[in-house]
Amino acid sequence: VLPTGEVVSTGGRFLKDVAGYNLTQLLVGSEGTLAIVTRAICKLIPRPRFQKSLLVPFGSLEDAARAVGEILRSGVLPQAVEFMERNALLTAVEHLGRSVPHQEAEAQLLIALDGNSEDLLDAEIETIGEAVMACGAVEVLLADDPRRQEELWSARNVIGEAVKKISAYKEEDTVVPRSRLPELIRGVRAIAEKYAVRAVCYGHAGDGNIHVNVIKTSITEERWREIIGPLTHEIFGLTVGLGGTITGEHGVGLSQKDSLGLVLSRPLIEIHHGIKRLFDPNLILNPGKIFDL
Amino acid sequence: VLPTGEVVSTGGRFLKDVAGYNLTQLLVGSEGTLAIVTRAICKLIPRPRFQKSLLVPFGSLEDAARAVGEILRSGVLPQAVEFMERNALLTAVEHLGRSVPHQEAEAQLLIALDGNSEDLLDAEIETIGEAVMACGAVEVLLADDPRRQEELWSARNVIGEAVKKISAYKEEDTVVPRSRLPELIRGVRAIAEKYAVRAVCYGHAGDGNIHVNVIKTSITEERWREIIGPLTHEIFGLTVGLGGTITGEHGVGLSQKDSLGLVLSRPLIEIHHGIKRLFDPNLILNPGKIFDL
Repeated sequence: VLPTGEVVSTGGRFLKDVAGYNLTQLLVGSEGTLAIVTRAICKLIPRPRFQKSLLVPFGSLEDAARAVGEILRSGVLPQAVEFMERNALLTAVEHLGRSVPHQEAEAQLLIALDGNSEDLLDAEIETIGEAVMACGAVEVLLADDPRRQEELWSARNVIGEAVKKISAYKEEDTVVPRSRLPELIRGVRAIAEKYAVRAVCYGHAGDGNIHVNVIKTSITEERWREIIGPLTHEIFGLTVGLGGTITGEHGVGLSQKDSLGLVLSRPLIEIHHGIKRLFDPNLILNPGKIFDL
Repeated sequence: VLPTGEVVSTGGRFLKDVAGYNLTQLLVGSEGTLAIVTRAICKLIPRPRFQKSLLVPFGSLEDAARAVGEILRSGVLPQAVEFMERNALLTAVEHLGRSVPHQEAEAQLLIALDGNSEDLLDAEIETIGEAVMACGAVEVLLADDPRRQEELWSARNVIGEAVKKISAYKEEDTVVPRSRLPELIRGVRAIAEKYAVRAVCYGHAGDGNIHVNVIKTSITEERWREIIGPLTHEIFGLTVGLGGTITGEHGVGLSQKDSLGLVLSRPLIEIHHGIKRLFDPNLILNPGKIFDL
């Protein structure tokens, strides 16, 4: 529904469409600033019959990052390649109140694989196992039933919750080319050290999309409020400098809009403003989000 | 390069990006009306080590269309699922000057599969073979070396050329939900019969994207010029009525712009005009394409 009250429909129950501009993708991710979506057609895939997971610890960030690349070059397409660095692991362990395998590892990858043939799945696991061992993996732990998979994923599954419980925090949704992951993590660590806060990095390594959580811990409230702006801006400067962007999933909203200029040049910002005015001449939809007008 | 001379960059060497509106996809497929693309970053996948093809003839369009759905529900993701109806086969055979297997079939599917493990590939072929036989396939012909694959694909590979050589023709790039393919083909046949021209349908069944070629054959030039507009409009009315669209790959350009109103309502057309004016206030880029301003 356009803010002028008109009801329009873009896309459809088909896979290809090049009739005019891609308004569907213009609306997707527009954070409620252009129209209100009241109906969406989604492409579904059948639920795969089998799923298995691998937990792979590494002695260095570089090895883990290299392994992500090799996994995706192997011809196998995993359902997920998730990453946790040491700080994230230890934060999760603290929260769980019990140890997890290889919790002292510099980095861990969690790889989920699925498919309809168990034989094919096992062959893929073999391929991935070889790829990660060739990148210096310490070990490959396999979980092939739901209970054991739950166990392997336990640290990853609680990390978001664990971060929130420590103290005030801010989560950034950084994206870099996958090969730049070690530089991102090291850069974030240096920034955190400079401001005397804790940084915890984890997320979707297969997409180069890492959630960087900056945790207040022991500094004063006043100091936290003072530093959080410049600190965030430094992290975004780092991701953009590595050829990345400032948000992969979460969007811009209110909290990232001051950094939008890092990724969009002036003419592109003006095009954003023009598109907003075109769809919403009275500026009534979700005002103040993404950018000010 | 924007028509105002400014050089901008959208997207990057990363997989996720939700920082602002999706201008990359707005520019892709804009047919040179919004900007000139001077550099593109493409996502590549490694070339699979093995490729095999299946030729599957069917006694009815419905069986072939049902098989397309079953193939894609089987959990196997083919590289291609191509379709040729009888008229297309016979046109190709005429052009080749020799017979091809099952050339009298009501419809043929050509399925290409690839992967890095020959064992996995053979298991996938087994799965697909079972799926198509359960849908009433007459036979499954397998080609596992390049020379035999070339042979299986020979009719499909010459059909475009074959159509062009007969007489004047017009190619439409129709898209429908895959399940509606039989209705599309039958509808096109009825329209062709009404105007006494030949229709040849083939294309990317896996995408629901069928190239409908209307061939002048023996009617006069004058009559051809008279009917081609209304005939095209009827075919597009049919595809849109089946929940599809008027172009899947080829774009709108000059020849489809009169039919754009079939898929875009007035407010959406106005948004197109506004986007064009926003990017190109002097209307200097590819004027007259997609729509008139």
